[in-house]
Amino acid sequence: VKADTTPTIGVFDSGFGGLTVLRALLQQMPHARYVFLGDTARLPYGSKSRRTIAKYAAESAQFLINEQGAEYLVIACNTASALALDAIQEAVPVPVLGVIEPGAQAARAASQTGDVLVIATDATVQSHAYANACKALGLHGIERACPLLVPLVEEGWTDNAVTAEVIRIYLDQLQADAAAENLHPDTLVLGCTHYPLLRPLIEKVLIEHGPKEIRVIDSAEATAERAAKLFHQQNSGAPGRGHREANFASRGEDPDSQTREANCAQVHCFATDSVEKFERLGSRFLGCPTGPVELVDLGG
Amino acid sequence: VKADTTPTIGVFDSGFGGLTVLRALLQQMPHARYVFLGDTARLPYGSKSRRTIAKYAAESAQFLINEQGAEYLVIACNTASALALDAIQEAVPVPVLGVIEPGAQAARAASQTGDVLVIATDATVQSHAYANACKALGLHGIERACPLLVPLVEEGWTDNAVTAEVIRIYLDQLQADAAAENLHPDTLVLGCTHYPLLRPLIEKVLIEHGPKEIRVIDSAEATAERAAKLFHQQNSGAPGRGHREANFASRGEDPDSQTREANCAQVHCFATDSVEKFERLGSRFLGCPTGPVELVDLGG
Repeated sequence: VKADTTPTIGVFDSGFGGLTVLRALLQQMPHARYVFLGDTARLPYGSKSRRTIAKYAAESAQFLINEQGAEYLVIACNTASALALDAIQEAVPVPVLGVIEPGAQAARAASQTGDVLVIATDATVQSHAYANACKALGLHGIERACPLLVPLVEEGWTDNAVTAEVIRIYLDQLQADAAAENLHPDTLVLGCTHYPLLRPLIEKVLIEHGPKEIRVIDSAEATAERAAKLFHQQNSGAPGRGHREANFASRGEDPDSQTREANCAQVHCFATDSVEKFERLGSRFLGCPTGPVELVDLGG
Repeated sequence: VKADTTPTIGVFDSGFGGLTVLRALLQQMPHARYVFLGDTARLPYGSKSRRTIAKYAAESAQFLINEQGAEYLVIACNTASALALDAIQEAVPVPVLGVIEPGAQAARAASQTGDVLVIATDATVQSHAYANACKALGLHGIERACPLLVPLVEEGWTDNAVTAEVIRIYLDQLQADAAAENLHPDTLVLGCTHYPLLRPLIEKVLIEHGPKEIRVIDSAEATAERAAKLFHQQNSGAPGRGHREANFASRGEDPDSQTREANCAQVHCFATDSVEKFERLGSRFLGCPTGPVELVDLGG
């Protein structure tokens, strides 16, 4: 047990999209210390095999734990969560949380019909991780890969007529898939860490083109809420560790910009290559400047 | 010198986009034998540093030469050509051709005004490889990154209203850049191996929205023409190697489908990961089935 009572949470992604999960974590647990690793030298994980992804993710997890002192790990990457969560949990000695199950659980809480739409990257959809997580909770998940949404977000076209049209096309295809199976979805899960930046536009398209009754669930937000609950339970349960509870405390309020910047100072970001794009785009995902991103070499 | 007179040409890309270059090579030199390597485990090169790209590209080149017997090498990847052509040429003992210079040379042959538009990926544009190659030929190159075009091609939206609108937006921005510098471009270079699949749509957008006088240059085609010329010169020049000339012969005609399929049988494709996407999409780039793609491990 360290003298320092501030817990260190490791957050890992193949790129910088996982900063939306870190942003949600900062809101839930503003007083923790965060180390974020984007394995940018080897992204995107989406086009790689399960074996390769598991190897890369385990290496990244070990860096955060062994070299940066992370005591908890959040896999802020849908592909790695879908394909390698078990492998990471086996490879490291700290609690590990992925983004898939919290997303599915939030969908269960939100859905009345039990039919849930899921949009994600190709690799996440091909793994059927969301459909399986939904099934385990008694839901029916209808998945669709939306490979254009990540580049549209990275191009900065988050409030743009072309992007709205692309979203409309994808949602129409999903609705057609649902109708073909006689399903009645009332919930849409954003199963990719880039998608929270499109949430306002997605909600606008749903209102304008329907169906209006669909509620949007953000896996990043759901994961942060689940993490806060988990870490709270673990720390209040352990004797003599109750004092750490205060450091997780959050009033669930959106902090003012000054508070948010102070919290962001608690974030230390690492990347395995190409820090330039990370620094340029990262702040839009994190909601505040990432600070200088440090280059690390994990080999490969 | 092998008893076999059929030359083996190695073609290398970070993914499978370079199959458009191989397609053009097959048209120019239908009787050569081809080994293609897509370094899919480590794509995209575009987000990586020069040092990393040079290392990956040299490893891939060595595989094609040492293990597959390539006697010539075509770097069918704009990013690798832009950032690592020198490094590859130093690392291997065979002639190496990239895609940038042939593209710039074709633009010089086509342009009256000397002002040339170039569309490419982020990394290629940031390297200014086309602008530099244009400058060396007395042209003025105006570059623009079009990061949405690759995912649109991979989504199969090559004849689609959304894609046409994206192309129109990019071309408008390029025209505005040119106008701001008082330039009068009459040529557009497709500086990415995915873009030949968009050529009909790009030409349609140019006709509908103007300027109509712009001629489209395809770097893949230009590279294949340059390769055919180079290899022809080298082989007819070397004593006792003149008999190999016949094996490069091309009448420059578009072969009928039967001939094309027979030529495609001369192609052997390798990938470092995820052969599934390669096999699924590759045939659209190559213009005929890729055949089974063999998985190779280059480490990393």
